[in-house]
Amino acid sequence: MDKLHSLYTFIDLAGTFAFAISGAVAAKEKGLDVFGIVVVSFTVACGGGIMRDVFIGAIPPAGLSDWRYLIVSVIAAGITMSLDSWVKVFNRPVLLFDALGLSLFAVTGAEKALAFSSNNEVAVLLGIITAVGGGVFRDVFLNRIPVIFEKEIYASAALMGAVVVVLGHFWGIPNQWLFPVGFLVCFLLRLLGLKYHWELPSFSKEKEKPKVDV
Amino acid sequence: MDKLHSLYTFIDLAGTFAFAISGAVAAKEKGLDVFGIVVVSFTVACGGGIMRDVFIGAIPPAGLSDWRYLIVSVIAAGITMSLDSWVKVFNRPVLLFDALGLSLFAVTGAEKALAFSSNNEVAVLLGIITAVGGGVFRDVFLNRIPVIFEKEIYASAALMGAVVVVLGHFWGIPNQWLFPVGFLVCFLLRLLGLKYHWELPSFSKEKEKPKVDV
Amino acid sequence: MDKLHSLYTFIDLAGTFAFAISGAVAAKEKGLDVFGIVVVSFTVACGGGIMRDVFIGAIPPAGLSDWRYLIVSVIAAGITMSLDSWVKVFNRPVLLFDALGLSLFAVTGAEKALAFSSNNEVAVLLGIITAVGGGVFRDVFLNRIPVIFEKEIYASAALMGAVVVVLGHFWGIPNQWLFPVGFLVCFLLRLLGLKYHWELPSFSKEKEKPKVDV
Repeated sequence: MDKLHSLYTFIDLAGTFAFAISGAVAAKEKGLDVFGIVVVSFTVACGGGIMRDVFIGAIPPAGLSDWRYLIVSVIAAGITMSLDSWVKVFNRPVLLFDALGLSLFAVTGAEKALAFSSNNEVAVLLGIITAVGGGVFRDVFLNRIPVIFEKEIYASAALMGAVVVVLGHFWGIPNQWLFPVGFLVCFLLRLLGLKYHWELPSFSKEKEKPKVDV
Repeated sequence: MDKLHSLYTFIDLAGTFAFAISGAVAAKEKGLDVFGIVVVSFTVACGGGIMRDVFIGAIPPAGLSDWRYLIVSVIAAGITMSLDSWVKVFNRPVLLFDALGLSLFAVTGAEKALAFSSNNEVAVLLGIITAVGGGVFRDVFLNRIPVIFEKEIYASAALMGAVVVVLGHFWGIPNQWLFPVGFLVCFLLRLLGLKYHWELPSFSKEKEKPKVDV
Repeated sequence: MDKLHSLYTFIDLAGTFAFAISGAVAAKEKGLDVFGIVVVSFTVACGGGIMRDVFIGAIPPAGLSDWRYLIVSVIAAGITMSLDSWVKVFNRPVLLFDALGLSLFAVTGAEKALAFSSNNEVAVLLGIITAVGGGVFRDVFLNRIPVIFEKEIYASAALMGAVVVVLGHFWGIPNQWLFPVGFLVCFLLRLLGLKYHWELPSFSKEKEKPKVDV
């Protein structure tokens, strides 16, 4: 049990690091100052988890009370700021990190929600929110439409990862099997979506001519 | 009592449907993909109620734990996406739906806040937040200034509806009278505001020359 | 103790007033209507504190349940709207008010978080969130990148004020000494930052050429 808990903590911090990098890169490009980069980095990394904890009543949220999340975010922001060329050369690793964070958080978010409330729908929704919430904050702060609403398979990958965890939990499959499977489902979906530019259908033809002003 | 509860649930779901349509229409116009449209639809429909539940401590929020809200949002998004011409022809119905949702949520938001906390100010404010919160999320996600801050009588109609509920509650008027009156006050104010383009005074003359950089 | 509580309430309301002015000025410049100005004013004044209360489980949040915050915000919005010339002439006082609110909220936010949870990191983070949260809401609503991420020493001043409170609390220094020192540290840092245009380093050179699309 204790070993499982260590594993859970480790992958949670790995996901935090991955998302913090993605936030720092976007904030740096927008020309934010050092503090702004750290804040966006921390928000992307912990924003989704903090929302999840507020919604399940885990107060204060782990993202605020566990100093390790903050430290990991600051380190990720520091790496991004100091290694200028790193970011330019390694575009693909950043997307990989982001996909890693997405998959880890979808799984751990659903699992934590299940642990606090036996409601399956809450667990699926909070798996998604944990996984994509931080990215939505990033884009709202950087004043653009959240990319998850427009891009390749992203939140839908998190949805599938969370569904795997909730279904497996329902069927009594132990976590050491469930976590890797949920992670892999989300991760592979995301990578395939990136590679083949899978996109969900949209209605962009209407983009230029808004008619209804609601 | 049970009958009242059914009525409460029905109008809550009707308001959810109305707001989900309004969210889906706006998201579709911005060219979001299918998933983005569903997410915005759900957020507009349930965002205000979820904020209300977080503020009164009703954890997990009903918008997340009651699958009916999700189903209704998905159906509304599906209708909006499949009936392309429907949206263009029925501009006015969308505004009607929106006014319907506004009035229903102002009433039920204030009532739920009263049930969880005896504080009257909280009930009025949460009536407004339940009614307009989803629309604010919609506009923040779609990267524009929330229309409720600029448009015809809108949030002020929700304010009046919530005040009716709180005052009536204070005077001991039973809910089967209170709800329809609060609803009608908000709904008529909103419709009259739309019809006669009632607007609250603004200071748009200064829009072009921002002087203070705070 | 009772006297201290009165002082606490007074500075909390003074900070509320200061932030409400700053919100009303920004909303008025954007051409929002009367209701929109009041809403932005209230959100800037109470948004940070409401987030803090949600995160520490102080439900319902004081910003919603204590009518004085609402009254103070409405008065501040009314003053801003009626005294047109006042705002133009007194650019500097607005910045002063803002710095005042920042310093007061950094101190009281950290203190309230300490009172609800013994966790020091939570107290520092919530000191910052209380101080800058309202301003972030203001800028998100007005559809721009939050200035705190780009400007002179601002959130970093709140950080120092909150750190003073948490450290002093840890060392057992009584609040009547701690509060003024924390306040002054933050206030002076902010004023000096304004006067000498201190800025944290940024990476604006890359602003024009975004490369990584995460």
